[in-house]
This record gives sequence, structure tokens and C-alpha cells, in this order.
Amino acid sequence: MKNVYAVKGNIIFTKAFGKFEVLENGYIVVEGKLVKGVCGHLPEEFSGVRIVDYGDSLIIPGFVDLHLHASQYGNLGLGIDKELMPWLETYTFPEEARYSDIEYAKKVYSALIRELWRYGTTRCCIFATMHKDSTKLLMDLLAQSGLSAYVGKVNMDRNSPEYLVEDTKNSIEDTEEILKEYLSKYELVKPIITPRFVPSCSPKLLKSLGNLAREYRVPVQSHLSENCDEINFVRKLHPDHDNYASVYESAGLFGEMPTVMAHCILVDEDEIELMRKNNVFVAHCPLSNCNLSSGIAPIRRLVSRGIPVGLGSDISAGNSLSMMNVIVNSGQVSNLKWLQSSRVDKPLTTAELFYMATKGGGKFFGRVGSFERGYEFDALVIDDSNLSIFRSLSLEERLQKFIYTGDDRNIKVRYVSGREVKEPILY
Amino acid sequence: MKNVYAVKGNIIFTKAFGKFEVLENGYIVVEGKLVKGVCGHLPEEFSGVRIVDYGDSLIIPGFVDLHLHASQYGNLGLGIDKELMPWLETYTFPEEARYSDIEYAKKVYSALIRELWRYGTTRCCIFATMHKDSTKLLMDLLAQSGLSAYVGKVNMDRNSPEYLVEDTKNSIEDTEEILKEYLSKYELVKPIITPRFVPSCSPKLLKSLGNLAREYRVPVQSHLSENCDEINFVRKLHPDHDNYASVYESAGLFGEMPTVMAHCILVDEDEIELMRKNNVFVAHCPLSNCNLSSGIAPIRRLVSRGIPVGLGSDISAGNSLSMMNVIVNSGQVSNLKWLQSSRVDKPLTTAELFYMATKGGGKFFGRVGSFERGYEFDALVIDDSNLSIFRSLSLEERLQKFIYTGDDRNIKVRYVSGREVKEPILY
Repeated sequence: MKNVYAVKGNIIFTKAFGKFEVLENGYIVVEGKLVKGVCGHLPEEFSGVRIVDYGDSLIIPGFVDLHLHASQYGNLGLGIDKELMPWLETYTFPEEARYSDIEYAKKVYSALIRELWRYGTTRCCIFATMHKDSTKLLMDLLAQSGLSAYVGKVNMDRNSPEYLVEDTKNSIEDTEEILKEYLSKYELVKPIITPRFVPSCSPKLLKSLGNLAREYRVPVQSHLSENCDEINFVRKLHPDHDNYASVYESAGLFGEMPTVMAHCILVDEDEIELMRKNNVFVAHCPLSNCNLSSGIAPIRRLVSRGIPVGLGSDISAGNSLSMMNVIVNSGQVSNLKWLQSSRVDKPLTTAELFYMATKGGGKFFGRVGSFERGYEFDALVIDDSNLSIFRSLSLEERLQKFIYTGDDRNIKVRYVSGREVKEPILY
Repeated sequence: MKNVYAVKGNIIFTKAFGKFEVLENGYIVVEGKLVKGVCGHLPEEFSGVRIVDYGDSLIIPGFVDLHLHASQYGNLGLGIDKELMPWLETYTFPEEARYSDIEYAKKVYSALIRELWRYGTTRCCIFATMHKDSTKLLMDLLAQSGLSAYVGKVNMDRNSPEYLVEDTKNSIEDTEEILKEYLSKYELVKPIITPRFVPSCSPKLLKSLGNLAREYRVPVQSHLSENCDEINFVRKLHPDHDNYASVYESAGLFGEMPTVMAHCILVDEDEIELMRKNNVFVAHCPLSNCNLSSGIAPIRRLVSRGIPVGLGSDISAGNSLSMMNVIVNSGQVSNLKWLQSSRVDKPLTTAELFYMATKGGGKFFGRVGSFERGYEFDALVIDDSNLSIFRSLSLEERLQKFIYTGDDRNIKVRYVSGREVKEPILY
């Protein structure tokens, strides 16, 4: 059978929120880019197909990072001592300005893509910068790498440093140019509408971006309710709106097209209801929320309300691209949130967090993040033999140990949409 | 000059709490095991000494881990979904029971020591288990490795699973045997009195351990006020005592000899005052406190009161031996504590946390954790050239980037008490 192959190993994934599917020494049969099925023994009909045997390794879905700022990779680990607004002014904006230089962009973006590959992030939603050319370059480099991503040229035409304020008309035109050029250029790398956040986008710009999203049928990403000062600022800018989310909604940027909002720490009841109604995704970025003293998002509550949640690294406010680190930190802050909520909002389990880091975020990309039939085959092969294992462990325990104590060195092979992706050599 | 050498590189350390001392391309002159001085140019008198040039690398003090359970290394990353008391019963106690098997102990302890070395932990305070022989073995292996540690045979004679309850008399005799044999056996590895915690030690046992500490002039380590259920249990066991700390104090185990207490999350005002008066050290273990839903220790308050604080990994409740990870997590939870305290308890800065991870904890070992004259020369050489550096950074920024984004791969050389320590091959 052409285009059919099987991988063999210890298979773990989450079909339902919080429940591991486990198959020891099983097979995943792949046809083209899609999973045909998972089975303990290869059925007769596949007897002739190529089998890639990963021995005692674990095979898990690739990680999905729902929120990161590619241009801030050079700032990773720097300046972790400020709140959101002063941090933007001191660290973020000056760094982003450098992306008018296409050579600088090429250097940093290439290094970033290699790191994403290293850490097993097979899909991500990326903020680039306002610069059209380096945003296009980032999409080209990603396509070359074999990883999958939504990439947004950032829009910002107010309340930003002079050197980063766009002319509204140019901002819209540049965005449309990218949409036209990149909408069908690549299969795995696509554009996404990316207003930075309400404070830095005029109502006119937001409205136009909403129109573009609708016209070109592209998804939307932005930030929502991360920090007290930010929310007060939005309230001051938009006294006519009941809340932060409604500013996006009135511009057609809150679920009319698939939408993901980072943070959502301080969302009020009306915003939660709007998110639920419009199926707006949350990108939960706890490393960032801890580093910038923003607080702990009410993830248990959001999940209980049926709002789709994935995880995000949010570099460089987050200090790590590793989705394993993000899972660990998400678990830890969910424990603290449980204490904060007088033991009402139950801690998130490893299986729930693993779901968020794979299928939960993967839904934003379609049928991604699981090994169910019809899902795109994104996978990681994990060799955990160097970890602190001194007795026989279940596969769930081995996965937990990998997440909590392993790192990129344990990831031996990556697949994206049915194809093995080798280390990208881009620069 | 015999026994004198100099290392050259970019030197960073913290002499005072929260303030980096920085010297680009400087020298640290070492005589025997002690630092003679730090200088920009080598004075005439040292012109002939051997110079080890580490080029553009950073040279920082070795990390001090004030609290870890060696026997739980095999459980690292497992079972992170329980609170303290059920977690002890399900994961910890059954694993500790295995240390009656000296071969098992040898295997795990050897692997652990190699990991400590890898992560640049040059000094640590270790809980072994109640087993005399494997505790001795751990001390022998540590001495062989060249790392420095206090190692405690754990004492526990009540409220523990049957297979881990000691006979009180045996517990005391075994402890004294170790003290006699190991008090002067090694220079860098020493015994420490280690009642597990009040719930598992009878008043008689505690009293006897206090006597041993005084008689043999050895330090003391235990746990204090980690979790609500634990504190309620202590209150029920000791209704005659005002608080948890006073149970230790009445047994001569709270500062009569140098004492370090892990956690101290829920200490009350009287306990804080007692700690201050008796100069009791806190081992702050935020990874553990997050994983077990224990809460966030009031470190800013404790430091303001003049209580000495160091950091601890507390494996396997903590999920990482990396003191870089512990620093990062400490910063993050201090930000959350700032929010919790209505912005009263200021977040801990990187320089403050670095102090805690070096000189703060190092004080428990004497003159350790700094490059001031007369300090034992414990150092790490850090090659950060593979990190995400795309523009010129200050040395403070480079250190911050290493802590927040680097790992063991960046640590190229380790010194303990004046000697370079190579990778230990123990098993």
C-alpha cells in the first residue's frame, strides 16, 4: 500500500480530557498525513507495510504551543523582574524594533525554529512583529523546517513607542498583502490575524482586521485580561464597552473566525460566557503569568464551562520553550489556585494537562494532537532510558517522569503531519 | 608558591543579599581550599602561580541545596498529584523501605550523586533513610565523589508504616554509632541529626537526639510547618506546646546547634520570633511546596526579620535537582506571594535568589558560597555560548539567562573546597 506505514512502540495519548489511552508495544498505522488507527497487532491488510520499530520508547503526540512571540527569543530569560506594562517598554519593544533588519530576523528566527524542533513543539501559534518582510521570512523558514504554525504579522497603531507605531492604513495593507501571498502558499504554515492587544490597536484598525479575518476566512489571536493595569487602561480607552472581550467582539475578532486569546487571568463572568458562546480558545501561559506577576488563570473554572484550553510558552515573558516545563508549571499553579479558591477549583492532573498540551491546543489546528483515526500524525518518540528509573514503571508513570524530569535530550524523533522532521539547518 | 593557583574568567557572586559583585576578566586566587582574593590584575606576588584561564566563561559559586531526600531519587517526577500525608504513604514510605537492601541503595545513591554533580550542586543537606548501613554507604560514596554534604540517618519511631517504625533505643544507638564513626572520618562529608519530623518522632526520641546533637556538637535538620493537616496533627500530639517549633526547641533541636528547617510555610509569629532568636535556617523548597499543594512560604517576611534562608530542591516532592530551576520557581512564587499579600511582600529579585542559592545556604556550611577572602573555593564554570544570545549582554544578564534558560550542559567545571571535582563514576 502506497503511503502507508506503521510505527511501533509504547503508545500514550489523551482522547478525552484527563484520561490516558495506553497501549504497550502497539502500532500506529499512518496513511499519508493521517492516522488510520492504533492497534495491538497489525491487521492482515497491513502485513506488507513498512514498520518503524521504536522498541521500548514512548510514542506521544507532538506538543502544541498556542502562544509565543518569536521575536522575543533573544530576550529569553532576561528582565524577569517587571510587570507587564513596564516590561513591554523596557525589554520587548526595543527588541521588536530590530526586526526591521531582515538579517537579524533571519538569525534569531532560524535559531528559534531549531529550538522549537528540539523541544518537540510540532505546532504553534506565533506572534511575529509588525514588520511585513521579516514576518514573511519567518513563514518561509518554518515551512522549510517542516514544523506547522500559524504566524501573525502584529498590528499596532497606538499607545506604543514611536518607532513601533504603524500607520493604520499601512498596517491593514501589509496584513492583506501577507494574507494574499501566504493563504495557500504552504500547507502547514498559515497566516493568522494578530492585533497585539486592545491598548495598542485603534478601533478602526480592529474593525478592519475583523473584516480581513472574515473575508479571507483566517483565524485570530490576541491577548485578553492579563493584568490589572492593562484592564484599567482598556476600560479607560473604551468606556462604552462592558468589558475587554467585548471590544474584540464588536470588531468581529472574538470567535467569528476561530480565535485564541492568551492569558484570560482576570476574565469576568460576562467574558467567560462570551468565550463559551463563541468557542474562543484560551492559551494558558503560566510561566509568563508567574514571571510578570500577573496571577493564576482560573483554568479549572474555564474548562468546567466548556471553554477550549491549550497551553502556551509565551516566550519571552515565559522563560522556556519546553512544553514539558509549561505542563509542570501549569500543574503547580493549579495547586496554588486550589488553595486560593478555598479548595474549590480542583488541581489539574497530569493527564488533563497533557491533553491541553496536545489535543486541547491541537483542536485549533483541526484534527491534531491525538492518535485517533483521521488525526494528522504529529508524534514524538521518547527515549527515557537515562531517567531515574530503578524499578518497573507503568507507561503513565514513565510519561509523568519524562514530563517532570526529562528534557529535549529524551526526544529522539519528531513527526509532523505524517512526515518525520529532521533537525532544521536554516542559517 | 605551593598550593596557590588562580582561575580567570568573568566572575559573579553575591557578597550582600541582593547585590551582585561583578568582575569581567578577573582572577580568583586560591590557596589550598580557600579564596585568597578576587582581583582585576594578578598582583606581583602571584606572578608565578598556575593560572587556569576559562576565557569568556562565567565563574560563579557552587550551588547549595539545603534540603533533599536522597532515597527518593527513584521517585523523582512520580506521583505529583497528592498532598503531603497521603503522598508519604503512597510513594515515599514504600520506596524508603527498599534501602534495607544495600545493593539497591548503592545503585540509586551513585546515580543521585552523579546528578548532583551534573547540576553543579557542590554542597547539600541530605536526608537518607532510617537504615544505618545504607546511610553510611551514602556518606562513603559522597566522600569518594568530592562533593560536600551533611548526611542524616533519618529517625522515626511512631506514626509511620510498620515496616518503617524504628525501635526508639535502636534508633538512638544507630545514630550514635554513625556519629562516632563519621564525625571525623571525612573533611567534606559530615553527619547531621535528622528527626524526620515531629509526627514521626516520640518525645523520648527527640530528647535523645537533642542530647546527641549537643554531646557531639553536630547540626540538626528537620521539617517545620509545611501543611495544614501536618500542623493539626502536631497540635493533637502535643497539646501542651504552643506551636510546632516549640516541640523541637524543648528537645534541644531548634538552634542549640546549627539547625535548618525545611518549608516553614505556615509558621506563626511566635515561631518566626523563635527562629530569629535561635538563628534557625529555613530551607525554602518551592517546587515541593507547589507540587504538594502546600502553599507559598513567606520568604520576604522571614528575610526581613533576619532569618537565614537558603534554597532546597526537596526531591522527590520537588521534581528537579537543578538549583537553577529552584531559583526560577522561587522567583515565580514570590511574585504570586506579592499578589497574595496585597502587594506588601515584595517579589524576590534574581540577585536575592542567587544569594540564597549560594551564600545564603552556604552559611550553614561555614564560610561557603562566596568568593570573599577566606571562603572555601566552591565554583562553577559556565559556558553560555549556546544560549539565545544575539547581542551584547552584561554579565548580570548573562547569569540571568543561564539561570532562566540554561541547564547542566552549560556547567563545564566544578570546584569544591579548592579542588576540581570530575564526574563521579561510582557504580
